[in-house]
Amino acid sequence: VSKQSVGEDIFGFAQELWPFPRSLTGEGTRATLNKINEKLPNLKRLSYPSGEQVFDWVIPKEWHVRAAYIITPDGKKICDFHSNNLHLVGYSIPFRGFIDLEELQTHLHSLPEKPDAIPYITSYYQKRWGFCISDNERKRLQPGQYQIVVDSNLFDGTLDFGELVIPGKSDKEVFFSTYVCHPSMANNELSGPCLATYLAKYITELESPPNYTYRFIFIPETIGSIAYLSKNLSNLKSNVIAGFNITCVGDERCFSYLPSKSGDTFADQVAHHCLKWTDDAFKRYTWLDRGSDERQYCSPGIDLPVVSVMRSKYGTYPEYHTSLDTLGGVVTPRGFAGSYQLYLRMIEVLETNCIPIVNVLCEPQMGKRNLYSQKTTGERHRQTKNMMNLLSYCDGKFTLFEIAEKINVPYWDCLNILSLLIKQSLVRLVNT
Amino acid sequence: VSKQSVGEDIFGFAQELWPFPRSLTGEGTRATLNKINEKLPNLKRLSYPSGEQVFDWVIPKEWHVRAAYIITPDGKKICDFHSNNLHLVGYSIPFRGFIDLEELQTHLHSLPEKPDAIPYITSYYQKRWGFCISDNERKRLQPGQYQIVVDSNLFDGTLDFGELVIPGKSDKEVFFSTYVCHPSMANNELSGPCLATYLAKYITELESPPNYTYRFIFIPETIGSIAYLSKNLSNLKSNVIAGFNITCVGDERCFSYLPSKSGDTFADQVAHHCLKWTDDAFKRYTWLDRGSDERQYCSPGIDLPVVSVMRSKYGTYPEYHTSLDTLGGVVTPRGFAGSYQLYLRMIEVLETNCIPIVNVLCEPQMGKRNLYSQKTTGERHRQTKNMMNLLSYCDGKFTLFEIAEKINVPYWDCLNILSLLIKQSLVRLVNT
Amino acid sequence: VSKQSVGEDIFGFAQELWPFPRSLTGEGTRATLNKINEKLPNLKRLSYPSGEQVFDWVIPKEWHVRAAYIITPDGKKICDFHSNNLHLVGYSIPFRGFIDLEELQTHLHSLPEKPDAIPYITSYYQKRWGFCISDNERKRLQPGQYQIVVDSNLFDGTLDFGELVIPGKSDKEVFFSTYVCHPSMANNELSGPCLATYLAKYITELESPPNYTYRFIFIPETIGSIAYLSKNLSNLKSNVIAGFNITCVGDERCFSYLPSKSGDTFADQVAHHCLKWTDDAFKRYTWLDRGSDERQYCSPGIDLPVVSVMRSKYGTYPEYHTSLDTLGGVVTPRGFAGSYQLYLRMIEVLETNCIPIVNVLCEPQMGKRNLYSQKTTGERHRQTKNMMNLLSYCDGKFTLFEIAEKINVPYWDCLNILSLLIKQSLVRLVNT
Repeated sequence: VSKQSVGEDIFGFAQELWPFPRSLTGEGTRATLNKINEKLPNLKRLSYPSGEQVFDWVIPKEWHVRAAYIITPDGKKICDFHSNNLHLVGYSIPFRGFIDLEELQTHLHSLPEKPDAIPYITSYYQKRWGFCISDNERKRLQPGQYQIVVDSNLFDGTLDFGELVIPGKSDKEVFFSTYVCHPSMANNELSGPCLATYLAKYITELESPPNYTYRFIFIPETIGSIAYLSKNLSNLKSNVIAGFNITCVGDERCFSYLPSKSGDTFADQVAHHCLKWTDDAFKRYTWLDRGSDERQYCSPGIDLPVVSVMRSKYGTYPEYHTSLDTLGGVVTPRGFAGSYQLYLRMIEVLETNCIPIVNVLCEPQMGKRNLYSQKTTGERHRQTKNMMNLLSYCDGKFTLFEIAEKINVPYWDCLNILSLLIKQSLVRLVNT
Repeated sequence: VSKQSVGEDIFGFAQELWPFPRSLTGEGTRATLNKINEKLPNLKRLSYPSGEQVFDWVIPKEWHVRAAYIITPDGKKICDFHSNNLHLVGYSIPFRGFIDLEELQTHLHSLPEKPDAIPYITSYYQKRWGFCISDNERKRLQPGQYQIVVDSNLFDGTLDFGELVIPGKSDKEVFFSTYVCHPSMANNELSGPCLATYLAKYITELESPPNYTYRFIFIPETIGSIAYLSKNLSNLKSNVIAGFNITCVGDERCFSYLPSKSGDTFADQVAHHCLKWTDDAFKRYTWLDRGSDERQYCSPGIDLPVVSVMRSKYGTYPEYHTSLDTLGGVVTPRGFAGSYQLYLRMIEVLETNCIPIVNVLCEPQMGKRNLYSQKTTGERHRQTKNMMNLLSYCDGKFTLFEIAEKINVPYWDCLNILSLLIKQSLVRLVNT
Repeated sequence: VSKQSVGEDIFGFAQELWPFPRSLTGEGTRATLNKINEKLPNLKRLSYPSGEQVFDWVIPKEWHVRAAYIITPDGKKICDFHSNNLHLVGYSIPFRGFIDLEELQTHLHSLPEKPDAIPYITSYYQKRWGFCISDNERKRLQPGQYQIVVDSNLFDGTLDFGELVIPGKSDKEVFFSTYVCHPSMANNELSGPCLATYLAKYITELESPPNYTYRFIFIPETIGSIAYLSKNLSNLKSNVIAGFNITCVGDERCFSYLPSKSGDTFADQVAHHCLKWTDDAFKRYTWLDRGSDERQYCSPGIDLPVVSVMRSKYGTYPEYHTSLDTLGGVVTPRGFAGSYQLYLRMIEVLETNCIPIVNVLCEPQMGKRNLYSQKTTGERHRQTKNMMNLLSYCDGKFTLFEIAEKINVPYWDCLNILSLLIKQSLVRLVNT
């Protein structure tokens, strides 16, 4: 499977998931999890009941929408939830009735600076109803009586999520978290669960089990990660050696990185290295710029080594949290393909990092092994130089990853060099 | 009392102290200490006898000047000590007689590059007499016989100083040192003792005793700090957790900072933080730029955590060590007010720093406590962001001061946030 | 002996050594060692037999050239080894015969971008013969039959080198390595052994024995250092406290420095300090730029603290490895003199570094010892300032070298100040 074609597969999967009305809870989220389950047969489906206390929070009621729309004075149906589920404010309480334009305005949300966009608004913890509308359409509304239908339902149900654990040779875990609570928007956030599905699929389908155990969770943001942590904290704290919050991974504009709170975990180092060598113009945010589930994973007492490796970060691109964040408009197959490759590179580092040590004192004689180029320029010279530089640090004190940083060469190139050196019996691996 | 009005009070106090002919010893210094004593009734008056050995030094003789002036060939009295006590070289030995202009010139000091200024010159350890005069006046001197009167007296007396100890809940001390040996100059140095007096007054008048013990000393520079250290070293080394050399704190031109020798004591960190958030254009000197009593406080074997937090540093402004360094010309009420506020801020950090720890795992739900703004811009958003950032470091590993540095927010704002969080029982303080 | 005259002496010595056809082995190298032996009577002559295994390498056969040249179709003798020993590819195997121009071309080496230069080529480990020629001369070659004479001989002989150990008060060693395998080129490499000879001579002739033991080796590059390490590793690892690879030390263009692998050994620090204060425009290379015997001295498991302190580094100057790298053209007496002085400075630091501690608390009274200038500008002021700064760090925690770095003053100036302070009994040395 070529990288590009994987990008198209992931993009196709995103198109399938697009119409489901995702939220913290409800049918749209379950339908999304069902589709992911089709790709990942071992996905474990779990749920928390409404009303359950999880740390400082309470699992919310389940939200179901049968229909939601507005009938204008001249009888036109607008803001129809079924045509675009962004039209209804998330978690709107039920309402039916006739109100005049002035009152309606207090329930409408639009963005004057982006007059064509329907904004994305939720009201999870404050009981109200509302509609989101493009500012252009809003301006055309005429005085008169409007019929409002919010045929929603808030009831004691469940908050659902999916968890996939792929056992490795070690109990130590690599952890991936992504969220399934955003309705029809592409980069933030349909891209995360789609990429995570394909990464999980890749690891599941490996010929031999991976060295580490891999854990993927598909959850609603914030309340989902808090709920998950409330049940799994001790295991996660014991085992997770690196974690990634997968969000905003579908566009082509840039790569970016938001560190863990401590900023220097191995996950941070690996992310930084792979980003630097994939796109040296990647953007580096700080812990103070955070806004997604790393808020929970790195909070005091939790302190997991979780970073976010993204394309255009939430909050930084013009289509963010509006109907303009579309598949095709913002997210592309090429965007997915690049993210997929980057994540595979990070996984490769985690899986293969090791401590090499030379078998001879002083420089080995590379010439007699046909590993040495006398050239002083060009690609062969560069390869010889990288090999000699790598060898010079094979003293059993540095990991291959640390050597890659020291000799300023991508880890994946170092891995190729290491293979050659092992084949020639010049280097062995330290048992760790 | 408003900050501005405190600046005027301090300025007024400086005007009172201005005319006293301060020096290492003598009536002018004692008069200055008397005035300070009026403001600080608990000031302890101490003295060392002339001739006493203090480390490598000897307490000098006491110097008294009854009169000093020159009568020109045409009968005019110039360089009169009573009109400006800078006219007489400090510690001039007595002399009476008639000398011609040529010989007089060898006893005169002026500054050709600042022709209107009377320079400040002393000769503590070399026995001579001399007069300081503006270069313009000097140039007008005509050949002829000049009558010289230096009616001074050097005798076995005392070196006097004042010490105020304000007991706190802890024996650990915050130490302030300032010097009372400079005659009629404003920034360097009448500003230091005047500000120190008002800081001491502020702490004395606190409703409840401070957490730390506060020690203020009003001494002559160099010989005074050496003498004081010779008697108090063991106590100071055991107890001082932060110290400040208060000098050049009255002008408005800039703030500046000269670090302790090690450069990274808590006093250094606090000074740097408060300066940065008070005036981000503050000047940062190095230990190699030192020139005041930090030379003694940080010398080998002494090694106290003492820094200098100043306005325009001695030696760096054009009026330095001349008659141009005046109240009004260089030092202003506003200059004093800014220094006063800055020092109060540093004291606030020292007094209130603590280790906060959250009471819940994961982010607390701020919405239900009305502590969360959904806004993504503006002041409320900034406050929410600062609060969430602060909370994210409340893991019992960092002091509030360290958190303020990490989240890049002034300590005083962090202290306000902490109050809110404690009130909501979201955070408690670690017992230390 | 003035510095300049030493430069001329070293240059003269280089002129003597110039004509010998140096290589890894053979008469030219032995003749070179004989001449060095004349200057250094205690030089120990050692050799390894061809065929001996040294770590991953084998001592090569000895190479002897009686004659080598080409007779052109019109009877002219060109590429004569005896007129310039660069004409013959190093380690060329014997060949006699007539070949046409086309075949000859496959045995010729020239540099089109440097048409007047004869390049320097070797083929130690691949059996072939070849000639080096200027590109201009090569272009003039006419079709026809060429007579080739390579009257060389490869036989089981020896690889020779010289070692000089100058015993010091301590068994701890300062190590110098330089190489004697390059034929007629000046900077790289006749400059290294010539300078090393004069440094060794300087230390040998000291009035009293040095504090450290000094070891100089004159070896062929790569195979020589590997062979030497294979016999002396344990001693070197136990005793060497600082080492220098002396190469490319004869030109005037710049100074440069290539660090040890760890980059922060005392040798690195000393080199950096002395370079900075000798020429603040010196070039700083990294470990990844290495290319000489530091490759062996710092290889995994060897890890000696060896740095290279050079003028223009090998590979970086236009005449490098060609007949243009000449005495006079590239290397000059002044170039040698500067390198000699720099190395003496580094040796001075190593020999004299110590931990000073003051004998008094607080600042000593410098005035009464006539060590204090009241001036606030000029040289005397600078000296006073340096002395007070140095004193402020004499707390028994810092070496004089560390103090020199802290107060930003050359070590040699600090050493002068320290002498004054010791003479005044203000400072003593900590016993170490």
